[in-house]
Amino acid sequence: MSIADIDYILNLIKDDLANIETELYRYLDSEVDMANEVASYTLKSGGKRLRPILLVLSTHLLDYHSNRLYKIASVIEYIHTATLLHDDIIDGAKYRRGQISANKKFGNDIVVLCGDFLYSRAFINLVEDGNSEIQMILANAAKTMSEGEIYQLIKTAEFNITIENYLKIIHSKTAILMSACCEIAAVLSNKFDMRSNLKKLGEYIGIIFQVNDDILDYLGNKNKTGKKLGTDLKEGKMTLPLILLRESSNEKDLQIFKNIFFKNNINKNDFNVILELLMKYKIKEKAYNFLSDYKLQCNNLLKELPKNIYNDCLKYIVYYAGNREN
Amino acid sequence: MSIADIDYILNLIKDDLANIETELYRYLDSEVDMANEVASYTLKSGGKRLRPILLVLSTHLLDYHSNRLYKIASVIEYIHTATLLHDDIIDGAKYRRGQISANKKFGNDIVVLCGDFLYSRAFINLVEDGNSEIQMILANAAKTMSEGEIYQLIKTAEFNITIENYLKIIHSKTAILMSACCEIAAVLSNKFDMRSNLKKLGEYIGIIFQVNDDILDYLGNKNKTGKKLGTDLKEGKMTLPLILLRESSNEKDLQIFKNIFFKNNINKNDFNVILELLMKYKIKEKAYNFLSDYKLQCNNLLKELPKNIYNDCLKYIVYYAGNREN
Repeated sequence: MSIADIDYILNLIKDDLANIETELYRYLDSEVDMANEVASYTLKSGGKRLRPILLVLSTHLLDYHSNRLYKIASVIEYIHTATLLHDDIIDGAKYRRGQISANKKFGNDIVVLCGDFLYSRAFINLVEDGNSEIQMILANAAKTMSEGEIYQLIKTAEFNITIENYLKIIHSKTAILMSACCEIAAVLSNKFDMRSNLKKLGEYIGIIFQVNDDILDYLGNKNKTGKKLGTDLKEGKMTLPLILLRESSNEKDLQIFKNIFFKNNINKNDFNVILELLMKYKIKEKAYNFLSDYKLQCNNLLKELPKNIYNDCLKYIVYYAGNREN
Repeated sequence: MSIADIDYILNLIKDDLANIETELYRYLDSEVDMANEVASYTLKSGGKRLRPILLVLSTHLLDYHSNRLYKIASVIEYIHTATLLHDDIIDGAKYRRGQISANKKFGNDIVVLCGDFLYSRAFINLVEDGNSEIQMILANAAKTMSEGEIYQLIKTAEFNITIENYLKIIHSKTAILMSACCEIAAVLSNKFDMRSNLKKLGEYIGIIFQVNDDILDYLGNKNKTGKKLGTDLKEGKMTLPLILLRESSNEKDLQIFKNIFFKNNINKNDFNVILELLMKYKIKEKAYNFLSDYKLQCNNLLKELPKNIYNDCLKYIVYYAGNREN
């Protein structure tokens, strides 16, 4: 069968997701109310819960069902939320998911510490769970994510960044944790022969997801994404659309593009000029084309994994990650 | 016997400390050079390595000797360094230990992420070590530290903060990790009957250490501490000297003190007025007197622990924590 939309999946695993939501707030039991408040505020702003969804689908794919899942989902979502909090400080973000960002609402100081609170809360839950392989997968993911963010700060300001280095960044900052969600399913269900496949599947889904995110930052619909467009350009980040534009442009357009990229205050007009160049050189098509190989690899990996409804769901998630509009 | 100075101790355990220094840099092997660089910069600025010293003395006190110690010391020092990095961002510190602070040298963005890198690196080492009790002690310590820092941000701006709440803050931000150093010794050496004693000993040493730190911020010798005096006053933090001053002052002096505390820009003259009030009300004596009960309790705890040279060293550390001038 073929899954037609994300709502079908959300409905299929609604009990799991409800349990995860409960679990997410269960551990926000700090004596220091402010720690709970900032964490709740950020968790409540929702997000797609894509990582918990990946964990649930991958474990069910391998016929693993246990409440243990929900605690591990909380760890993953806490690590993810901690990185969001710290990223928002770095980006000076004013909004996240359409609501005022935690750093603007509570101040950078509290938010730095609340990120640390979530990291340590995640660690406590992992120690309680007690599986050293899962601990290592997630500890390594957290380390790689921090390294990736540092690397991004240094590298994406480089106009001539290579596609390889761009991929290294999005692998570290996004794909590694999604990869962990799928890999952990194999560990939980003791199906170690599928570990490498699931790890790769999660990684490629993460790359597809992040590239799409980077495309939406230029070509998305603000009403659907709830985000301001052009953030990456303003922050001087070279992401896939700009890398492809750099590689496609004729000399004259390249100079126009460069002049804007290196400007100090990029305004709406500059952004529109870039948008026109992106249209002229069919960058949207090229970017989605870039993803097609990853999608193909995902589907090949899924063919080697158990066939069931969750396999179909994961196939849809691959599609969704690369085609979602928000 | 009685230990006459800290150098005696540093010499006695010099091989351990040298091994710990090696270990501290061994794991700074990120592919992202900047992560290693910021971590090294902060670790190299030295500090007293009081936490590793406590760990070494406590384990040797219980006749435990193993290289495993050094890896755990690296975890503790990484967690400590991560909190320092994040604290410096919050305080906007320009100097730490007499050198330019990491945030001023590398920028807040990199430093936030480098703190996260050190947390996750610490976590990886803990997972590799594999003892779930030690993992839990340190995960809880990290969580308590972040909560304590949040609580401090909220509470110390309160002129009427109670001594109990002040103690709660310094317990969380300083004493909990020192307490962990001593407690871990009992876990490592399987001497669980001494666990509670060692945990308390470390906690009280931490409180003594932090109170002394708070005293030195007013009454220290800048040339010895390498820190600017009056930082806490500038940041509007009510620490023990100010709490005791508030409780000792007559109405007129209390008003003078209050006016300065609530000023926006505290200058050298304001600081000198506070210093004079601290002298007038013998706050230094009162603050050290406040510590005498903790020192007594430490010595009572030590009497119930094995008698050997390391017991003498820990007794000296109690003295040192409360009397050091830098």
